[in-house]
Amino acid sequence: MSLTVAEMQALVREGVPLAGAWGVEVLGFADGEATLRLPHREDLLRPGGTVSGPALMGLADVAMWVALLSLTGGKDESLTANLAITFLRPPAPRAVIAEARVIRKGRTLSYGEVMLRSEGEAAPCAHVTTSWAAARRGV
Amino acid sequence: MSLTVAEMQALVREGVPLAGAWGVEVLGFADGEATLRLPHREDLLRPGGTVSGPALMGLADVAMWVALLSLTGGKDESLTANLAITFLRPPAPRAVIAEARVIRKGRTLSYGEVMLRSEGEAAPCAHVTTSWAAARRGV
Amino acid sequence: MSLTVAEMQALVREGVPLAGAWGVEVLGFADGEATLRLPHREDLLRPGGTVSGPALMGLADVAMWVALLSLTGGKDESLTANLAITFLRPPAPRAVIAEARVIRKGRTLSYGEVMLRSEGEAAPCAHVTTSWAAARRGV
Amino acid sequence: MSLTVAEMQALVREGVPLAGAWGVEVLGFADGEATLRLPHREDLLRPGGTVSGPALMGLADVAMWVALLSLTGGKDESLTANLAITFLRPPAPRAVIAEARVIRKGRTLSYGEVMLRSEGEAAPCAHVTTSWAAARRGV
Repeated sequence: MSLTVAEMQALVREGVPLAGAWGVEVLGFADGEATLRLPHREDLLRPGGTVSGPALMGLADVAMWVALLSLTGGKDESLTANLAITFLRPPAPRAVIAEARVIRKGRTLSYGEVMLRSEGEAAPCAHVTTSWAAARRGV
Repeated sequence: MSLTVAEMQALVREGVPLAGAWGVEVLGFADGEATLRLPHREDLLRPGGTVSGPALMGLADVAMWVALLSLTGGKDESLTANLAITFLRPPAPRAVIAEARVIRKGRTLSYGEVMLRSEGEAAPCAHVTTSWAAARRGV
Repeated sequence: MSLTVAEMQALVREGVPLAGAWGVEVLGFADGEATLRLPHREDLLRPGGTVSGPALMGLADVAMWVALLSLTGGKDESLTANLAITFLRPPAPRAVIAEARVIRKGRTLSYGEVMLRSEGEAAPCAHVTTSWAAARRGV
Repeated sequence: MSLTVAEMQALVREGVPLAGAWGVEVLGFADGEATLRLPHREDLLRPGGTVSGPALMGLADVAMWVALLSLTGGKDESLTANLAITFLRPPAPRAVIAEARVIRKGRTLSYGEVMLRSEGEAAPCAHVTTSWAAARRGV
């Protein structure tokens, strides 16, 4: 049974407290894709007014998790195995939109990418690739 | 002229407000290396009690910046160009120690690595590599 | 003035001798995108019959270069700054198709991704992201 | 029972035919570390005389495999899951030395790094991180 957007957002904020603290919003998800939004927050800016790198990484990490959860009806215990972010241009002092998609869903390893854009801009501010491993003891 | 540890910590908390909010401490730095500490904080944990990925990424990012600043007497305007983190084992619900070192310091691109460990443990919980680009308009 | 496919292929095989030795073919390119083909070759297989990792990496590297050259009429002196490949499934013992696209073209740093597939298959066997730096002395 | 250097080299050249074709030599290995050498070869150079990127990636890939094999007496069926290389300076038109070390050996995922240097030089020409996954059907 599939989740509503509100249910997914509650799930994510519970599972990743930083996402809750930052007010990350789930805008939509389906079939291995997800769109999330990080609102504008003064405490996530760097001097000069760009959104800080760790905030972008955190947003991307959560976005991929939602994309994975979209394939499993909200049940997923896999963990980030690695995450690589490339910063493409300084993000504007505005909300950031993350579009995640799963490129491969495997039983023990999954992989996907996330494009990050300042809200209202076409050009991405950062690109992320990330692998997730099934949670198990003693990997 | 070289900075004191207290001066470096003030510089970092001003330049990266999240580092200040999380209470990141600079323990030492010299010659392209730096050691930082992220204190134990309930709000940086994930359910299950491990330190969240974005917190580790943020710590590593700041640690590399201090390692770069150690080579330039505290003046460095370069920005993270990319950062790749691999999670090796769940970090314990304790402080995290980051040891960063610059592998290459160039005029326009620098590169280094950061090892992250739960305080008091020998085995790393994550490993980071990261490139930094000289800040300039219109790269 | 834009290059023909044959001219681009000659340029690439001259600039990257391994691409010539392996018989890499340029199938098409335009506007920051490029499609290349690595023919089936026994000497590029691993035991078990999958195309070896270094061959995939080499193909991806050349594919991104063609995508960059497509934006500049065949003149590009930038060099690979980094390349990250994730292997998604064993490539079949067949030709491999690489589809590269530039995500950001900058003056000093460019960035793009490459999807690799066994010829005739929809699911990718590997995914690559790569940054390129303008060639200059003393970076 | 541990392998001799000659036995390890034979194993590697059989398992990775490109390593054999390029004449990759195993110089030593122990306890999760390995040192390999890629001889100078005209056909692996790029115009300008630097060793080509794919040759460096191939060398690093094999070096990590030997480091893993050093922990298991020569029996290892894991496969490269990802590999990320950062090019630090142009490699001289000489042999290249790779020093690999395993940072984490797990049952299903292992991780390590490789430093690459032109023979006789202290400064590295490239740095690699790589994850390996236990081979199994249907990952």
